[in-house]
Amino acid sequence: MVNYPHGLIRKSTPLRSNKSKRKTVDFANRGMSFEAAINATNAYYLSRKIAVIHKKPTPIQIVKVDYPKRSRAKIVEAYFRQASTTDYSGVYKGRYIDFEAKETQQKTAMPMKNFHQHQITHMANVVEQDGICFVLLHFSTLKETYLLPAKLLIDFYQVDLGAKSMPLDYIKKNGFEIGLGAYPQVPYLEVVDDHLF
Amino acid sequence: MVNYPHGLIRKSTPLRSNKSKRKTVDFANRGMSFEAAINATNAYYLSRKIAVIHKKPTPIQIVKVDYPKRSRAKIVEAYFRQASTTDYSGVYKGRYIDFEAKETQQKTAMPMKNFHQHQITHMANVVEQDGICFVLLHFSTLKETYLLPAKLLIDFYQVDLGAKSMPLDYIKKNGFEIGLGAYPQVPYLEVVDDHLF
Repeated sequence: MVNYPHGLIRKSTPLRSNKSKRKTVDFANRGMSFEAAINATNAYYLSRKIAVIHKKPTPIQIVKVDYPKRSRAKIVEAYFRQASTTDYSGVYKGRYIDFEAKETQQKTAMPMKNFHQHQITHMANVVEQDGICFVLLHFSTLKETYLLPAKLLIDFYQVDLGAKSMPLDYIKKNGFEIGLGAYPQVPYLEVVDDHLF
Repeated sequence: MVNYPHGLIRKSTPLRSNKSKRKTVDFANRGMSFEAAINATNAYYLSRKIAVIHKKPTPIQIVKVDYPKRSRAKIVEAYFRQASTTDYSGVYKGRYIDFEAKETQQKTAMPMKNFHQHQITHMANVVEQDGICFVLLHFSTLKETYLLPAKLLIDFYQVDLGAKSMPLDYIKKNGFEIGLGAYPQVPYLEVVDDHLF
């Protein structure tokens, strides 16, 4: 969890921020990773009581735990497990929000190997249950970020089960660009409001 | 995740199961823990496309990882972190569902030390965002399970910040008993349908 610099929030900042790209202050120029920028965005949404959205903990398979005397339990053997769901979920105006975030340095496509079959299955289940589900796709070299509704990702994945890269043109045609800002850094709920609610 | 015995699901089983207590087949008599019974219930809801609700992974602070040659990454030092949210969340008919499950052997009260301040804060945030939020409370000796809406838990917690136990009488007065069954084992969405939606 990134700690948000509370002192810097102007009390009057509206949810709908200036959509023009302020690239001089965006998260990449401040040395932030895309994930850190999303976490900071969620912290902003939480602190302003706009939405409650958290990143799920990394799933770990614990094999061995030591219980030293006068000390807390120490995990000494464990392995990373593949996530069976998406990374982010929460609630916005009563609705269920669920998304995955991916970043690439490529300029013309997003590699589909970033998405696993059971994540796609999970997204299809969420869509069927009328949840608001999407992916945030960040092209770091281009400094462009898009929200693509899950249905369009699933449709593309069906073609060859994720072997191919997803062209930026497909994303531009079917998704929505997110104007990156200072606060919040990745204001994706603006797109949710306008197109997915 | 508990694997659900798919072969045993009758295709015609309705969501609204017989509410009478079938104690001869409930999960406790089959040697299942309350958590395992909830996981099996969620697997049932998922397989029948009724709801998509998952247990979050345990939050772990990873300190050291080894990367052995020709072998997967091995975590060799890590610690349990206290959860900042509840254990279960997901989507049901488009709405956000969020809950925590607790079990006690006591017969007259649920120890409040089971709930942490930031979990209570999280639940208050979810309620404010119009999510459906509650706790499932299982009295294993009595073989009784209740759904208590988060607001009533928060109200009780405010009294002395969780020092006191929550009397079963308070739970009975403000919550709803869940009739435990065979499939699903803990049909909590029936109570959600009747009282929280």
